[in-house]
Amino acid sequence: MIEKTIRMNYLYDFYHALLTEKQNQYMSMYYLDDWSLGEIAEYFDVSRQAVYDNIRRTELMLEEYEKKLGLLEKYEGRRNQIAQLKKLLSERSVPDLDVIIKELEALE
Amino acid sequence: MIEKTIRMNYLYDFYHALLTEKQNQYMSMYYLDDWSLGEIAEYFDVSRQAVYDNIRRTELMLEEYEKKLGLLEKYEGRRNQIAQLKKLLSERSVPDLDVIIKELEALE
Repeated sequence: MIEKTIRMNYLYDFYHALLTEKQNQYMSMYYLDDWSLGEIAEYFDVSRQAVYDNIRRTELMLEEYEKKLGLLEKYEGRRNQIAQLKKLLSERSVPDLDVIIKELEALE
Repeated sequence: MIEKTIRMNYLYDFYHALLTEKQNQYMSMYYLDDWSLGEIAEYFDVSRQAVYDNIRRTELMLEEYEKKLGLLEKYEGRRNQIAQLKKLLSERSVPDLDVIIKELEALE
């Protein structure tokens, strides 16, 4: 469940601009602000089931976007690549390595 | 016009997975394979205007996706960052610089 939450946080971060306003509200309350389904339902005066269905559908949409665009996968690839580069650089004696590492990290 | 063609090639590359099959056919024939509107129209037995309208709408969709997700802008940012890093590294005497540069270029 924690793993799913982390994944959804990433997917939401990458694709939230493609969602509707309502989807964005529910998702950010549920995943970013850690509200419960019941709390969101009460706040918007709708049923808990309606909130659940909306969030579930949005999760499927996010997975569908990831299948098409693969932004999370590419991000993870870059992160590994950068870790590998840091290792390669730190094995050599590079002057001002910290400056280079900082520039490198901005590439994530 | 050439500038627009280059931009559309990039946007198509980044977002084509979000388009319909018909949009993908027209766009790849027009932008990647350099067919004319008339040739595409003849091939699909539709009017030149229909092809033009479809391609024009698709171009607007691609610009809309770019406004939301900014993949081309981020790509250009990374490319500049990598050029800057290459410059920083080549100013230092780093052993096996070519290995590092190759890894770095894979980050684009």
